[in-house]
Amino acid sequence: MFSAVGAPREFSSISLGPSAPAIAYCRTHRAVFLAELKDFIRFPSVSAQPEHADDVKGCAAWLAEHSRRIGMERVTVVPTGGHPIVYAECCHTPGRPTVLIYGHYDVQPAEPLDEWQSPPFEPMVRGNDLYGRGASDDKGQLFAHMKALEAFLQTGGELPVNVKCLFEGEEEIGSPNLTAFLRRDRHALAADVAVLSDMPMLAPNRPAITESMRGALSLELEIRGADRDLHSGLYGGVIHNPLQVLCEIIASLHDRAGRVRIPGFYSQVLDWTPRERAYMKAYGPSDVEIVRNAGAKHAWGEPGYTLYERTTIRPALTINGILGGYQGAGPKAVIPDRAVVKLNFRLVPDQEPEEIERLFRCHVDHCTPSTVRSFVRKQSSARPAVIDRRHPAMRAAVSAYRYGFGSTPVFLRSGGTIPVIALLRDILGMHTVLMGFALPDDGRHAPNEKFHLPNFFKGIATSIHFLAQMAGQSIDLPIAARRGLIRIS
Amino acid sequence: MFSAVGAPREFSSISLGPSAPAIAYCRTHRAVFLAELKDFIRFPSVSAQPEHADDVKGCAAWLAEHSRRIGMERVTVVPTGGHPIVYAECCHTPGRPTVLIYGHYDVQPAEPLDEWQSPPFEPMVRGNDLYGRGASDDKGQLFAHMKALEAFLQTGGELPVNVKCLFEGEEEIGSPNLTAFLRRDRHALAADVAVLSDMPMLAPNRPAITESMRGALSLELEIRGADRDLHSGLYGGVIHNPLQVLCEIIASLHDRAGRVRIPGFYSQVLDWTPRERAYMKAYGPSDVEIVRNAGAKHAWGEPGYTLYERTTIRPALTINGILGGYQGAGPKAVIPDRAVVKLNFRLVPDQEPEEIERLFRCHVDHCTPSTVRSFVRKQSSARPAVIDRRHPAMRAAVSAYRYGFGSTPVFLRSGGTIPVIALLRDILGMHTVLMGFALPDDGRHAPNEKFHLPNFFKGIATSIHFLAQMAGQSIDLPIAARRGLIRIS
Repeated sequence: MFSAVGAPREFSSISLGPSAPAIAYCRTHRAVFLAELKDFIRFPSVSAQPEHADDVKGCAAWLAEHSRRIGMERVTVVPTGGHPIVYAECCHTPGRPTVLIYGHYDVQPAEPLDEWQSPPFEPMVRGNDLYGRGASDDKGQLFAHMKALEAFLQTGGELPVNVKCLFEGEEEIGSPNLTAFLRRDRHALAADVAVLSDMPMLAPNRPAITESMRGALSLELEIRGADRDLHSGLYGGVIHNPLQVLCEIIASLHDRAGRVRIPGFYSQVLDWTPRERAYMKAYGPSDVEIVRNAGAKHAWGEPGYTLYERTTIRPALTINGILGGYQGAGPKAVIPDRAVVKLNFRLVPDQEPEEIERLFRCHVDHCTPSTVRSFVRKQSSARPAVIDRRHPAMRAAVSAYRYGFGSTPVFLRSGGTIPVIALLRDILGMHTVLMGFALPDDGRHAPNEKFHLPNFFKGIATSIHFLAQMAGQSIDLPIAARRGLIRIS
Repeated sequence: MFSAVGAPREFSSISLGPSAPAIAYCRTHRAVFLAELKDFIRFPSVSAQPEHADDVKGCAAWLAEHSRRIGMERVTVVPTGGHPIVYAECCHTPGRPTVLIYGHYDVQPAEPLDEWQSPPFEPMVRGNDLYGRGASDDKGQLFAHMKALEAFLQTGGELPVNVKCLFEGEEEIGSPNLTAFLRRDRHALAADVAVLSDMPMLAPNRPAITESMRGALSLELEIRGADRDLHSGLYGGVIHNPLQVLCEIIASLHDRAGRVRIPGFYSQVLDWTPRERAYMKAYGPSDVEIVRNAGAKHAWGEPGYTLYERTTIRPALTINGILGGYQGAGPKAVIPDRAVVKLNFRLVPDQEPEEIERLFRCHVDHCTPSTVRSFVRKQSSARPAVIDRRHPAMRAAVSAYRYGFGSTPVFLRSGGTIPVIALLRDILGMHTVLMGFALPDDGRHAPNEKFHLPNFFKGIATSIHFLAQMAGQSIDLPIAARRGLIRIS
């Protein structure tokens, strides 16, 4: 089935210099790399579900052992208040830059299970794609970097730059323990730049470097009514239904055009220049592409912006799930005693999660009728992030993509959120280069998640070229240098 | 624990005449009756849940065997398209009236299970109450009539009137197969009057005869968006969220005051005379009682009516459950591909379920944005019913309550729905006397459902007296006689 991928252009050896043996190693190890990635995906490392805590732990142990096996050093499974962090390094090139590779080995819940064509934790290749929960987000992309390191270590015996790896197990639940870890170990983690691959390109042959991510804020809103579930025949019409109140509050969150209607919600949102919006229009995905990639027929949302702008430089609020009342087969004549909604905000500069939470709480208080009680609980939050295009490592990444994918990447903005980017900036003063190998239709967070295998192998080649390019870079790090947190190479 | 019930006034033998031996039998069999009722409740005969189909069947077999054992004849478990009907009779008093006793042995789903203090299908006595799913609705009340029949059959050997029993297994799912059964067997089922106990009294010492029930219409509304679940980071703000649309449609169903806002919804609702409303005010439950019985702190609903009126002579619409999006622990950043709500209308004369369904479909069509699709599915329906107060069997019931409970019952209206009443009227031309033995705080359809045991025993005595009283009644049955469907005694 894998032969359909065609000629392995990604491992061609034109103008490689010192990377040639590493590229040659990859060419002969494709089947092994794929088998190992499948082993990685088989762990149901769902960080959100307590019943999978041991699977997350098992996955961390496997990843640590694998890091040791490819030649990384000081490999450690670091316990946290939640799921562990895996750390590894290989720093034998004094005077050259240090790159921190970040990835996450935890995955989203696989539900709804009955919509998967093959079981989420039994990875399966169909056509050129590898299906399984985490294949794209983020195990496959993290693993591309691992295999690049292996290719150097198993051929020349040395990496072109110093490398530190930080693999998190709580990214999908908002990285609740990462801040403490970064603060405590900020000196050990010091690096010139971070690299992270957890985002999509535009299309199989259109690579991209992500230059901004939205922030996020996940909340739960609960409405409580009577002390117990009530018979809707006997009490229908006289006791306020928490599920109905919840729906009415949710309905109050958007206007008919699709704008968020929470007072003050847009007041801190940055406007971008016409030049920047023109760049986005020229290089970003079109409205048609976005709707097609979503598997939808119609677009929706805030007027006055392209779909690409709506998902990147404009904030959004989505309803992720409602729990309330009877969920089984057939009817049940009940007025439930409570109802809960899970909400997710996506935030853009200069919105602050704390301020948005405050505005939401005010709005809910204002909308809650006196017949019921409302409770807001914060689940997680992350600040938005923008990465400087002029950073030398960004130039190295552009060059690496040209080698790996054969075309020049564009700078993209993402609607997603990776809390670590703002944390690396705020705590370690470090820029992060976002080199995505995923595709827009990978079904990240959805059933039938997949990773496009040509992108896996091209991603490995890109990572090899990136590390080689970084060896020659003179890093200029204004923020980090100012804060005195990291070593200038 | 049972001794707390106090002196068994319900089995006193003043002025009993031919009922004296039956009453004496009850006095000595209380413990046995209770043990048998527990056996009955142990069957998880949940008609709505396919996984309990065998339990429903087992419960029917048990009930049939029990009917045989107490001396009933022609006992039959009648298969239907769904759950079976149990039929039994004892007709040895030619020239005397025939009474059809209706009850249902199926129960509501027990969920949410974690809110039960003791398991729903392991009946347990605490204080004067027997806890378990179906204890009050309707196994306990049905069983009171069974024990009355047993008391006659095991003492005098004969019932004072002819009795036919019809015990249904699909009442809680809207009696989908009852109509066909009644039509097919209408000659065999012919009787002068039906009696049914599946409703509450006002309070332990305030018996009531229900003279009206609301109709019902259960619908499901589904909203479908994209072809698959989407990542709310990548698509939040550009793809319309079915869960959000669902909430907005639900929010459109009521105005702020609590009136249903579906155009035309109230146009067929009957107004009642000031005299009737004054009777309701004098004898019905007060606003304070209704709110307290609900375990709520605040009332809600349509202005201009008492709470008792809102739940009985005014229609209502309740939201019973929403399925959509992520239901597990923690956050999940997803835009679900679909969302479903379960809705329940309660209807009053002269609203017709078919017309209300049509109005709802029009409203949904009108409210559905072009970005999603909506689907309405009917689950069940029943017409409202009003029972004639002047019926001779109503007079017999009043007299029976005076014996059984020691006070004169009032005529009550109920907000609940018992489809069989309208069916018995429409198909068999038969009046139904609604003799409730439940209490308003029994938690019918809710966790910790209970039956007040003094009411169980007083209910048996009341049924004994009712059958004895019926022996002397000359039944005047204008509707039935006119339709030529039933035998005039």
